[in-house]
Parts: sequence; C-alpha cells; structure tokens
Amino acid sequence: MDQHKPNGSQQHPQPNALPALSLSILGVEPLDEFIKEIADFVHHMIKTRRTDHPDEVGSFEVEAKIGVLKERGTGSRLQMPVLVETIMSPEFHDVRFESNMSSHQHKHFNGLLNNLTATSNQPSHPSSPLHHSHHFLKDSFYTSDRGKIRVTRDEKTDAVECIQKIRLGDLNIYSPKRSADWRVSVSVEVPCPRPIGTATLTRRKDRLSYSHEEFSIDLTQVTSTTSAAAAPQIFHELEVEIARPDMLLSTAARRGDPNVPELERSAFDELIRAFVNNARILVRNSIDGWQ
Amino acid sequence: MDQHKPNGSQQHPQPNALPALSLSILGVEPLDEFIKEIADFVHHMIKTRRTDHPDEVGSFEVEAKIGVLKERGTGSRLQMPVLVETIMSPEFHDVRFESNMSSHQHKHFNGLLNNLTATSNQPSHPSSPLHHSHHFLKDSFYTSDRGKIRVTRDEKTDAVECIQKIRLGDLNIYSPKRSADWRVSVSVEVPCPRPIGTATLTRRKDRLSYSHEEFSIDLTQVTSTTSAAAAPQIFHELEVEIARPDMLLSTAARRGDPNVPELERSAFDELIRAFVNNARILVRNSIDGWQ
Repeated sequence: MDQHKPNGSQQHPQPNALPALSLSILGVEPLDEFIKEIADFVHHMIKTRRTDHPDEVGSFEVEAKIGVLKERGTGSRLQMPVLVETIMSPEFHDVRFESNMSSHQHKHFNGLLNNLTATSNQPSHPSSPLHHSHHFLKDSFYTSDRGKIRVTRDEKTDAVECIQKIRLGDLNIYSPKRSADWRVSVSVEVPCPRPIGTATLTRRKDRLSYSHEEFSIDLTQVTSTTSAAAAPQIFHELEVEIARPDMLLSTAARRGDPNVPELERSAFDELIRAFVNNARILVRNSIDGWQ
Repeated sequence: MDQHKPNGSQQHPQPNALPALSLSILGVEPLDEFIKEIADFVHHMIKTRRTDHPDEVGSFEVEAKIGVLKERGTGSRLQMPVLVETIMSPEFHDVRFESNMSSHQHKHFNGLLNNLTATSNQPSHPSSPLHHSHHFLKDSFYTSDRGKIRVTRDEKTDAVECIQKIRLGDLNIYSPKRSADWRVSVSVEVPCPRPIGTATLTRRKDRLSYSHEEFSIDLTQVTSTTSAAAAPQIFHELEVEIARPDMLLSTAARRGDPNVPELERSAFDELIRAFVNNARILVRNSIDGWQ
C-alpha cells in the first residue's frame, strides 16, 4: 500500500538523484475524478430526495458491496477494453451485479479482517483500532400496500426493527485488475409499523461487523428461505457502510458551503474519500472464488 | 484544484463535526491504480528495449499528447459507458488518436500557460516557476534503408539534429468528462548520420516551450508540406514531455531496488506521478474545438 508522498524538502541531493518535484505545474495534485464522481453521486441522491411526505422520511444508507459485474447475455464477468478501475455509466444496463461470494472467499476476508482487528489494536498501528461484534439477525419480508417491509429481529437481544428500504440509486465500479468489482448504493430506510400477515421470505444473517471510525464493514452469511418446502439457500456478502446517517446528512448539508470553516465544508468529501479507500482495499484483497 | 488533505489533528471538535478520519482501515491511501499502470507501462517499455545493436541505442522519450480518441468506423469521438477517465487496453484497435486542435484551442492554452508562467514567477506561488522559450524549427523527413529519418534544423541557431524516432508503444486515455483525451507514448530517438537525397516531407514548427522542473510543455503550430505543388497544412499540438532522458533512465533503473534509499527507489514513480498530474491539468483545462 502506497501513500502519496511527494519528494519533500528533506531530500539530500545525490548524484543522479531526482530533485524534489512539485506535484504539478500548479503545485497541487489535480482533483481525483473517481472519488469526486462518487461524492457527487451520493450528494445528488441525498439532496434530491423528497422529504415532503412523512411516510418517506428516513435515514440515508450509503454502502459499497463487493461482488462481480456480469454480462446479462452470457452470464460471464463483464469485459471492457480498459486497464484500470472505472465507474460504469448508470445508463449501461447490460450488466447485473452479484454480491454473492464463495464460502472460501468469505473465510479469506474473515481472516484478513480478524488479523487487522488484532494488529490495529496494538499501539504501533498507524490507524485507529477496528472493533468487531457478532450478530445473529432474522429478517422477515412482508408485502404491504406501501411496498416491501423488512422486519429484523436481533436474536441475541430480541430487539425488533421494521423498515421499508427504498433504493435511490447505484453506481457500478468495474475493476479489471482485481478478482472483484463493486457497487455503491444509496438507499433510504424508512421506519414503519410492524406489519401483520405472513412473511413471503425469511433469512437468517450471521454477521461479523467490523467497525472503524465512521464505517462498518459487514461480513455476512445469509441463509434464505422462501417456503417451508424449499431448501434454504446460503449466500456470503461483504459490504462497507457509512455508520452514522446523521453524520452523513450533516456533512452533506455543509458540502462546499462558503459560510462554514474549510474543514466542515470538505468533511463530506473526506468521508467519501475514506469510504472509497476502504472499498478499494477490500476489493484489492479479494481472491478468486466468486460464484 | 484539490489537494489530498485528510482532516488533521489540528481540528477543533465542533458539534456535528466529522472527527479526524484515517485515510482508510489500513491508515494509508490505497495505491493509485491509474498512475501505477502508466508507470508500469513506461517502465516495461524502457526495460524490455533491445540495446544490443549500436544502431538502436538512443534516448528514451516519454510524452503525453492532448487530443481526441475517434472511432475508426464513424470518425466521431469515442463513446464508452464509463463516467471517469480510464486507460484503454492496447488491444482495443477501434480508435485512432488525433492530436490536432483548433487554432482557437491553441490560443486558449497559450493564454493559460503564459498566465501560469507569469504567476509562477511571483514569490507567493506554491510551485517552482515556469520558463518559456520560443523556437522555430524545420523538420525534413528522409526515407533510408534503416527507416524514416528526421533532420531538424533550429532556424535561430542553425543547429542540426538527425534522428530516427522508433515508437515503442502508446497508451490511450479516455476522458469522458473533458473536452479532450490523451495519449502517452514511449519512443527511442536514435542519432544517425545526415541522410542524402530529397526530403519526402518538410514541416516548420513554431513552438512555445514551457519548462517546469523535469518537464517540458510544448505548444506547437506545425506547417506541413508534402510537395511544392500541394497547399501546406497547418496543425496545432500540445504535449508534455519528460525533459531529461538520462534522469528518466537512471530513475527507471533504480525503481523498486531494495538496495537504494527509499527516495531513490520511488523516484521513477514520483516522476511519472507529476507527469500524469501535468497531463491531467492540461486535459482538464481544454475547451471544445477539437477538429
């Protein structure tokens, strides 16, 4: 892993050594187009969201799922004539995104994240520590006149949450140098009353949740059941999420505001930068074994 | 223009303010895949070049030309379903690169670079100063048994240079958010004896050369003549070049060498980073008006 480290003034001149370089003719690094595109997308989703109807007011959720982009026709992984990670146009509909990984891949990430949790709790680690927690959740989905409702019960605490999750938009990121692609999704989770009737689908989630600063990295094994007669299906997923919807919203509100101090004005972009960095680190550590 | 500026420890906690963030769960920024790809490409071209034949020993030239990628079939600018700048696979042959810009675009860059030269020479400027020089050159091309030879005469100094330029490879960079694309080319310029006979093509170059640290930014008006009978054609070009072939070669030789100090080991990548940053800044300042 590399940090941006321009040759600094501490350099001792050597024969044939490159003199200290400015970052560019302007003296600065040009804006990272990739991170700005994702920040603009998330910001646009948040700012254009209707909030005039009480049934639609909820928390914004921004997540990056690790997976594979597959061509709709062939079912093979997308192939584009580009050499590096890029953001697909949302108008490009010839792909679907699959976030299901093999149990081998899941185990690999589990090992990596457990190691990182251990090393990051040592005093010499350059970043703040990760913490992990283990959750057993049961989701039940109901169809109601306002759409699909998810009831989630925490099997340890018995806490119950009823929400309607409204997907606002996705951006697919194609990553030809790596074993996996990724997708950024923005949703609103609207709390709602507990539905009555029978669930159309239930799933159990065995989730290892790694928290780091403003992010939650969730490694989940999902066992999904459509009916008592059908065999349950098992999926494995990895996602990074911005942990605090209120922080997301307050930094988005002050993005670029000339009336607030520079640190607050750029806080949203810094949040998205770290979010993108984390997603990239996970993708770059992925191994083969997507299903 | 933005610099990478993570929230630092100087932040004063505010209600709702984002706490200082690490760059990622690893505490570092993940490697920039785009810049590394270009560095790997240039490095590969240099390291795999045959040097066992005296007629093929010369100086490496690395340049980025600003232009437009056009679809071979339609002649329109390339359209790909991606949102941000990306590097095209060299196996993708459906495009050609055109570096000719309009005289309006040429004038626009001339103004920008003159302004930057003026402001960069003021003490308050964050980067080292640019310098410019004006050259009038005449190229004559000859066909010989060893290939095409270029004889360049500096019309002010009468200095003459005879070289055979051997193109080693190109990388095309598609830049959908901007008015222009760009291309990185690696060539070898092999000095050779002055040819005899008649030139097949002559061109006059009116070149404004802006130098900044290890780079030369050349804004050139080319008047090209194939025969006395044919009307001359006028082209306008903009390119960034790594100015010192010996520095390029010596940093490439020490890239990643564990036996040299870290600053020397990473000098090649820092040279390419500044080169890419400069090309990006020029592309991002391009206006419409490509021919």
